[in-house]
Amino acid sequence: MAGLELTFADEACALALSDEQLLAGMARFEGALARACAKSGLVPVAEAEIIARTCTGARFDPAALASAARRAGTLAIPFVKQLTEQVAAASPEAARYVHFGATSQDVIDTALVLCLRGAADRILGLMRRLGDAAAIVAERHAATPMAARTLLQAALPVPFGWKAAVWLSMLCRSVLRFRDASDDACVLQFGGAGGTLSAFGARAIQVERALAEELSLRVPLSSWHSARDGFARLGSEAAILAGAAGKMARDVSLLMQSEVAEVAESAAGGSSSMPHKRNPSGSVLALEAAQRVPGLAATLLGQLTPEHERGLGQWQSQWLTLRELLCAASSAVASMAEVLEGLRVDTAAMSANLERSRGLVFSEAVSIRLSAALGKGAAHSLTEKLSATAIKEGKTLLEVLRADPAVAGAIPASELAGLFDPQRGFGAAPEMIGRVLARWRQVRATSLGTAP
Amino acid sequence: MAGLELTFADEACALALSDEQLLAGMARFEGALARACAKSGLVPVAEAEIIARTCTGARFDPAALASAARRAGTLAIPFVKQLTEQVAAASPEAARYVHFGATSQDVIDTALVLCLRGAADRILGLMRRLGDAAAIVAERHAATPMAARTLLQAALPVPFGWKAAVWLSMLCRSVLRFRDASDDACVLQFGGAGGTLSAFGARAIQVERALAEELSLRVPLSSWHSARDGFARLGSEAAILAGAAGKMARDVSLLMQSEVAEVAESAAGGSSSMPHKRNPSGSVLALEAAQRVPGLAATLLGQLTPEHERGLGQWQSQWLTLRELLCAASSAVASMAEVLEGLRVDTAAMSANLERSRGLVFSEAVSIRLSAALGKGAAHSLTEKLSATAIKEGKTLLEVLRADPAVAGAIPASELAGLFDPQRGFGAAPEMIGRVLARWRQVRATSLGTAP
Amino acid sequence: MAGLELTFADEACALALSDEQLLAGMARFEGALARACAKSGLVPVAEAEIIARTCTGARFDPAALASAARRAGTLAIPFVKQLTEQVAAASPEAARYVHFGATSQDVIDTALVLCLRGAADRILGLMRRLGDAAAIVAERHAATPMAARTLLQAALPVPFGWKAAVWLSMLCRSVLRFRDASDDACVLQFGGAGGTLSAFGARAIQVERALAEELSLRVPLSSWHSARDGFARLGSEAAILAGAAGKMARDVSLLMQSEVAEVAESAAGGSSSMPHKRNPSGSVLALEAAQRVPGLAATLLGQLTPEHERGLGQWQSQWLTLRELLCAASSAVASMAEVLEGLRVDTAAMSANLERSRGLVFSEAVSIRLSAALGKGAAHSLTEKLSATAIKEGKTLLEVLRADPAVAGAIPASELAGLFDPQRGFGAAPEMIGRVLARWRQVRATSLGTAP
Amino acid sequence: MAGLELTFADEACALALSDEQLLAGMARFEGALARACAKSGLVPVAEAEIIARTCTGARFDPAALASAARRAGTLAIPFVKQLTEQVAAASPEAARYVHFGATSQDVIDTALVLCLRGAADRILGLMRRLGDAAAIVAERHAATPMAARTLLQAALPVPFGWKAAVWLSMLCRSVLRFRDASDDACVLQFGGAGGTLSAFGARAIQVERALAEELSLRVPLSSWHSARDGFARLGSEAAILAGAAGKMARDVSLLMQSEVAEVAESAAGGSSSMPHKRNPSGSVLALEAAQRVPGLAATLLGQLTPEHERGLGQWQSQWLTLRELLCAASSAVASMAEVLEGLRVDTAAMSANLERSRGLVFSEAVSIRLSAALGKGAAHSLTEKLSATAIKEGKTLLEVLRADPAVAGAIPASELAGLFDPQRGFGAAPEMIGRVLARWRQVRATSLGTAP
Repeated sequence: MAGLELTFADEACALALSDEQLLAGMARFEGALARACAKSGLVPVAEAEIIARTCTGARFDPAALASAARRAGTLAIPFVKQLTEQVAAASPEAARYVHFGATSQDVIDTALVLCLRGAADRILGLMRRLGDAAAIVAERHAATPMAARTLLQAALPVPFGWKAAVWLSMLCRSVLRFRDASDDACVLQFGGAGGTLSAFGARAIQVERALAEELSLRVPLSSWHSARDGFARLGSEAAILAGAAGKMARDVSLLMQSEVAEVAESAAGGSSSMPHKRNPSGSVLALEAAQRVPGLAATLLGQLTPEHERGLGQWQSQWLTLRELLCAASSAVASMAEVLEGLRVDTAAMSANLERSRGLVFSEAVSIRLSAALGKGAAHSLTEKLSATAIKEGKTLLEVLRADPAVAGAIPASELAGLFDPQRGFGAAPEMIGRVLARWRQVRATSLGTAP
Repeated sequence: MAGLELTFADEACALALSDEQLLAGMARFEGALARACAKSGLVPVAEAEIIARTCTGARFDPAALASAARRAGTLAIPFVKQLTEQVAAASPEAARYVHFGATSQDVIDTALVLCLRGAADRILGLMRRLGDAAAIVAERHAATPMAARTLLQAALPVPFGWKAAVWLSMLCRSVLRFRDASDDACVLQFGGAGGTLSAFGARAIQVERALAEELSLRVPLSSWHSARDGFARLGSEAAILAGAAGKMARDVSLLMQSEVAEVAESAAGGSSSMPHKRNPSGSVLALEAAQRVPGLAATLLGQLTPEHERGLGQWQSQWLTLRELLCAASSAVASMAEVLEGLRVDTAAMSANLERSRGLVFSEAVSIRLSAALGKGAAHSLTEKLSATAIKEGKTLLEVLRADPAVAGAIPASELAGLFDPQRGFGAAPEMIGRVLARWRQVRATSLGTAP
Repeated sequence: MAGLELTFADEACALALSDEQLLAGMARFEGALARACAKSGLVPVAEAEIIARTCTGARFDPAALASAARRAGTLAIPFVKQLTEQVAAASPEAARYVHFGATSQDVIDTALVLCLRGAADRILGLMRRLGDAAAIVAERHAATPMAARTLLQAALPVPFGWKAAVWLSMLCRSVLRFRDASDDACVLQFGGAGGTLSAFGARAIQVERALAEELSLRVPLSSWHSARDGFARLGSEAAILAGAAGKMARDVSLLMQSEVAEVAESAAGGSSSMPHKRNPSGSVLALEAAQRVPGLAATLLGQLTPEHERGLGQWQSQWLTLRELLCAASSAVASMAEVLEGLRVDTAAMSANLERSRGLVFSEAVSIRLSAALGKGAAHSLTEKLSATAIKEGKTLLEVLRADPAVAGAIPASELAGLFDPQRGFGAAPEMIGRVLARWRQVRATSLGTAP
Repeated sequence: MAGLELTFADEACALALSDEQLLAGMARFEGALARACAKSGLVPVAEAEIIARTCTGARFDPAALASAARRAGTLAIPFVKQLTEQVAAASPEAARYVHFGATSQDVIDTALVLCLRGAADRILGLMRRLGDAAAIVAERHAATPMAARTLLQAALPVPFGWKAAVWLSMLCRSVLRFRDASDDACVLQFGGAGGTLSAFGARAIQVERALAEELSLRVPLSSWHSARDGFARLGSEAAILAGAAGKMARDVSLLMQSEVAEVAESAAGGSSSMPHKRNPSGSVLALEAAQRVPGLAATLLGQLTPEHERGLGQWQSQWLTLRELLCAASSAVASMAEVLEGLRVDTAAMSANLERSRGLVFSEAVSIRLSAALGKGAAHSLTEKLSATAIKEGKTLLEVLRADPAVAGAIPASELAGLFDPQRGFGAAPEMIGRVLARWRQVRATSLGTAP
C-alpha cells in the first residue's frame, strides 16, 4: 500500500492496516497458539517457544504468498508453509506443531481483528481531537449570529456555535456506538476445521482461553466463521462516522463559497491553473470519504449469509473492505479535526450576509408577532405579501412594515425594529448547545479516556 | 400499500407502517403540539383542546395530498392546510394556532419516529419468537451429529445444535444493538424553522419538554433536521437483522436440497408446474429480504451530509427507505421463526450423509492422531495420500488405514475404529452451545421482557 | 400504490407500474399463452378464446392474493388459481388449459417486462422534453458570461449555455444506453418448469414464437430465469439517468442560493413557517431520486448469481426494485424538465457575481498573458502575489496590475483592461456547445422519434 | 499495490492498474500536451520535445507525492512540480511550458482513461477465453441429461449443455455492452481551469484535436469534469460481468458439493486442516468478486452530481473505485475461464442423481400426459397424490403409476416407461443452445477480433 490515494497518504490516517501488518498479525496468532497449546500440554514447551520466537521475527515474501494464495484459495496455506520452513530451520521437531489444530480462517480473522483493534483505538483518538475542536467552536460562537439555511435558502438567524453543536451531537453518538461495535467485533476467532475446535478434544476450552489471554482478546460466544455480523456492524459505524465528518465538511465548504465567505480553511489548497484560488481541500477529503463508504458498508451487509460453516467469497475479502472503510473514516475525521482546529471565522461576513436579505430572514419573527393580533393564517399571508413587496421594490422588510397600515394597527412602531435583532431569535439554541457540550464532556471522560 | 410484494403481505409483518399510519402520526404531533403550547401559555387551552380533538379524528385525502406534496416539495404544507380546514370547521379561532412554531420536518420526522417505535417493538417480539425457536433446536440437537460443510464440501462431524447456536449468537447481538439503535433513533424532532425553536423565545425548552411528554418520546440533545445518524444506524441494524435471518435461511435451504434432505420446512411450498416439488418457501422470504437490505441501508448511509439546516433530498425519502428496511427485516424474522418452529429434522439422513463420505470426514481426526507419532507434516501428507486412495479405490478410509503399514506402526489397531465416532469429535461444541443459550436467556430477560 | 411519497405522486411520473398493472400483465400473458398454444394445436381454439377473453376482463382480489402469495412463495400460484376459477365459470373445459406448460416465473417476469416496456417508453418521452429544455438554455445563453466554480470557488468566466450543454451531453448518452438497456431487458420470458419448455416437446419453439408475437415481444436467446443481467443493466441505466437529472438539480439549487441568486425555479416552493422563502422544490425531487437510486441499482447488481435454474430471493423482488428505480428516474427527469422549461435566469446577477471577485476570476488570463514574457512559473507566482495583494487591500486585480512595475514591463498598459473581458475567455465553449447540440438533434431524430 | 488480496495476486488479472502506471499515464499526458501545443505554435517545438522526452523517462517518488497530494487536495499539483523540476534539469526554458493550460483533473482523468483502456482490452481477451470455454461445454454436453434445480429442489431433466448456454448468453450481452461502455468512457479529458479550454483562446479546438491524436483517444462532445456518467456506466458493466462469472461459479460450486458431485474443478484447492478436502477455489474467487462489486458500482452511481464545474469528493477517488471494479471483474472472468477449461464432468453422477429421485423429476411429463385425458387440474392433483405415495412408500413413481387404475385408464401401459426418458423432455433446449452458440460466434467475430 504505497498508495497514491489521497485517503491513505497522511501520517494521520496511517492505521497500521498494511499487508505487512496483517502478516505480522498472522504470525502473532501462530506464536500465541503454540504457547496456548503448550500450556495445555499439547505441544512441548521448548518447541512452542521456538515457534513463538520464530513468529516474532518471521519474514515473508508477499509477492510469492499472493500468487500462491490465489491458487490455494486462501492466504493461510502458503503462509503456514513459509512459516513452517522458518521454524524448521531452527528446529524440525518444533515445525511439527505449527498451526496445530487451527484452520485458515482462524489465523486470518484473528490477525484482522488484531489490526482492527489498533486502528479503532487510533480512530477514537482522532474523534477526541475532532470533538474537542467542534466543542471549542460551539462555545466560542455560542452567540455569533449567522443565517440558518434551509434548502439552501437563507432562513433566519441562528448562532454559529449551535451549528457546531449539531455537528458535535453526531460525534457524541458515534463515539459510543463505534466503540461498542469495535468491542463486539474485535474478539478471538478460533474454531478449527469445522468451527468446534474438534482437534483439541477435551482440552478445547482450555486452549481457547489461553490463546485469548496470549492475544489479550475476548473469547466470543462461539467461533464465528460464518457469523459476520460483528464486521458488518463495525463497517456501518465507520461509514456513519465518515458521514458525520462529511456533514461538517459539507457545511464548511458551502460557507467557504466565494459568494458566502463566512469561514475559511486555514490550510486552503491552491490550484495548478488559477493563482487566486483558495480551495476547501480538507473538506474535500472528508466528502470523498463520505461518498465512498456507503457502498463499502453495503458490501459487508451483503456478506451475512455465508454457506454453512465456511462461505464462498464473503470472509475472504473482508480484510480489503474493512481496511478501506476504516481508512476512509480515519481520513475524514483527521482532516476535519485539522479544519476545525484552524477554522477562520468571519463573523462580519456572517452579519453582512444576514443584512443582505434586507431583513427577510426575520419574516418568521414578524409573522409570529403579527399572529398575536391577526391570527396565524392572516399573519402569514400578510408577511408573505410584504416580503414580496420588499423584494420587488428593493426595500428592507422593516421599511415595508413601517409603511403598512395593517402592521401599524397590530404592532406598536416602537417594537418594530426590535424584531430585527438576531440575538432575540435564538430560541432554544443556548440550551441545546449546553446539552451537547455536557454530553461531549461526559462521553469524552467515560469513553475516550484511554484513546491514544 | 395494498402491496402484492411478498414482503408486505402477511399479517406477521404488518408493522403499521402504512401511509395512513404516517398521516395519523402527523396529526398526533399537531395535537400534542397544541397541548404543549397551551401548557406554556402560548395557545389558549380551549383552542388547544379543539385542535387536539380534531387531530384525533382527522381524515385526509391521500391522493390530493400526494399531488399537492409534490408541488410543494413537502407533504407537510398540504397536510397542515387540510388539517387547518378541519379545525376551522370546529373553531376558526382555534385554526389560528395549528402547527404553531413548527416546521415541515418536525411533523414528518416525529410522525415517522412514532411509526418506527411501534414497528421496532413488534420486530423485537418477532426476534424473541425466532430466538426461542433457535434455542430449542440448539438444545434438542446438542448431540445430533451432522457434517460441517466448509466451502460446500463435507468437512467433519459437528452437532446440529451447535449450528443452531451459531445462528442464535447472531440474534443475541442483534437484539441488543437493534434496541440501542431504535432507542437512539426514536426521539422527538422539534426545532422549528431553523432548528432552534426560534418562534418560542424564552419558552422554547418548556414547550419542547411538554411536547415530548405528550408523545412519550425522549428529548434529543438538539433538533436533528440535518443530523441523520440515528436513522442510518437503525437502518443498518435492520439490515444486519435481516442478514442474520438470511443466514439461517441459507443453511436451511441448502440442507433441504433434494440431494441432502437433512431438514424440511413443514409448510413447504408447491409448484405450479411440478407436482412433486416441496420448496423452501419460508427460507426464500428471508433470503429475499437479506439481498434487498444492503442497498437500502446504503441509501441511509449516503444521506448523512445534508446541506446546512435542511438538506435537499435526504430526509424527504427516508420514510420510504426505512419502511422497506423494517418490513424486510420483519418479514425475514417472522418467516424464519415459523420455519424453525416447524422444522423437520431427519437425523438419519444426517448420519447417512456422514457415512456417504466413507469416513473421509474423519480425516482430521486421523491426521491429528497420526501427528503424535509422525509429526504434523508427515501425518497430513500420509492422510492426504490415504484419502486419495480411498476415493480412487472406492474403499472406506478405515479399510485403507487398516491396510497401511505406516499407520499400523503409529496407531494400535484397536484404536482405529474409535477415530470414526462422530461424538468424539465435537470438541468445544457443547460449551459453545451452553454459552450461547445462557446469553440468550440473559438477553431475553433483560432486553425482550416488554416486547409485544 | 396510493403513495404519499413525493416520487410517485405526480401524473408526470405515473408510469403504470402499479400492482394492478402487474396483475393485468399477468392476465395478458395467460391469454396470449392460450392463443399461442391454440395455434400449435395444443389447446382447442374455442377454449383458448374463452381463456383469452376471460383474461381481458379478469378481476382479482389483491389482498387475498398477497396473503396467499406469501404462503406459496410466489404470487403466480394463487393468481393462476383465481384466474382458473374465473375461466371455469365460463367453461370448465377451458379451465383445464389455463397456464399450460408455463411456470410461475414465466408469467411474473413477462408481466413485469410488459409493464417496464411501457414505462421505459414514457421515460424516453420525458427525456425528450428535458433534452429540448436544456438545448434551449444552451443555445439562448451561449454567450452569457457567468463564473465557473471549481471546488465551490469562483474560477473564471464561462458561458451559462456551455454549462447547460454539459448537462445535455449526459442526456445524449443516456438516451442511447437507456434505450439499449430497455430493448435488451424487455424480451419474452418463457421456459416452463426447468427453463427448456419441456412441456411442449417438439412444438416448443413454435409456441414460443407465437407467444412472442401475441405480446409483441422479442424472443430471447434462451429463457433467462437465472440470467438477470438484463434487469441489472436497465436498473443501472435508470440510476445513471436519475443522476444526470440530479446533476442539473445540483447546479440549479446552488445557483439559486440566496447569496448567489443567478437562477430561480419558476414554481419555487413556499415554507410552512417562513413567509419569504422560495425553495428549489423541483431540484429537491431530482436530488432525492439521485440519492436513492445507487442502492436500488446495487440490489439488482447483487442478484446476478441465483442458484441453478431458479434462485432463492433474487427475481422474487425485482418487480419492487425496478419499479422504484424507474419511478425515481422518471420523477427526476419530469421534475427537471419542468424546472428547465421555466427557469428564470438573472444574467445581471451572473455578471455581478463575476464583478464581485474584483477581477480575480481573470487571474488565469493574466497569468497566461504574463507567461509569454516571464515564463509560466514566474507568471503564476507573480499573479498569485498580486491576487493576494488585491484581496488584502480590497482593490481590484486590474488596479493592482496597473501599479506593478513587473507587469508594466511585460504587458502594454493598453492591453491590460482587455484581459478582463469575459467573452474573450470562452475558449472552446462555442464549439463544445455546437457539438452537443448537433448530437442532441441526431439522438432525438434517431432514438426518440417514436417516444410518446 | 503489492496486494495480498486474492483478487490482485495473479498474473491473469494484472491489469496494469498500479499507481506506477497511473503516474506513467500522467507523464504521457503532459508529454503529449507539450507536443500538441507545439503543433499549434503555443510552445516552441524544441522545448516541447524536451518535455516529451523527459516525460517518457520521468521517475517519481510516490511516497512524497502521496503526502503532498493530501495536503494539496490533488495529486496533480505535486506531480507537476516534480515533473517540472526534471524538465528544468534538462532545460529551464522548457520547464516554463509544462502542464500548459491544463488543469489537475485533465491530467488525472486522462491518465486514468489510458490505464482503463488497456485494462478493458485485456478483460475483453479474458472474456473470449471464458466464452470459448463455455461454448465447448455447451456443445459437448448438448445431450447430457442432468437435473434442473429450481429453488434448490430437483425439478426435471435438462441437458448440461443448455445450462452452459444460459451462462454464455449472459456473456454475449456483456461483451457488447462492456465494449460500448469502455468506448464511451475512454475518451480524452481536456478542459483546462474551467472546462472550456480558456487558456488556449482561438486555438483551443486545434490543440484538443492534436492532443487526442497524440494519445489515440477520441475527442468527447465536451470536457466532462463534472459529467461522470461514462465511468458510472463502465463500473456497472464491470459489476454485471463479475456477476455473470459469479453465476457460473454459483452453479459449479453447488454441483461440486460432496452430496452432488456432478462436476469438479481440476485445480481444486486443499485445506490446511482436512487432508481429504477438494475445494472449489476457482469458484470462490468469482463469487468473492461478485459480492464485492455491487457496492463499488453504487459508489460511482452515487457520484453523478458533482458541484458545478469541479466537484468535492467525487472524481478524486474514482481511480480507486474503478481499479477495484476492473480487477474484480478480471479476477472473476480469469478464474472461471480456468475452471471451465478444466472442468471435470461426471455424467454418470448426473444420471445417478436423476435416478435418485425415483422418477419424481418426471412428474411434469406424467402430469402433462395425463392432462390430455383428465384435464390439467385433475392431472396435476393425481400426479401430486401419486408422487406423495412414491415418497411415502419408497417406491418409484413408475411403480406407483403402474399400480394406479386411473392412470391405467388414461395412458396405455406401453407408453408409461417412455415418459421417464430424460432425452424426451429436453423441449426447446437444443434450439436455445444453437441460438446462443450462433450469437457467440457472431459476437466473437465482430467484437472480440482485436482483443489481446
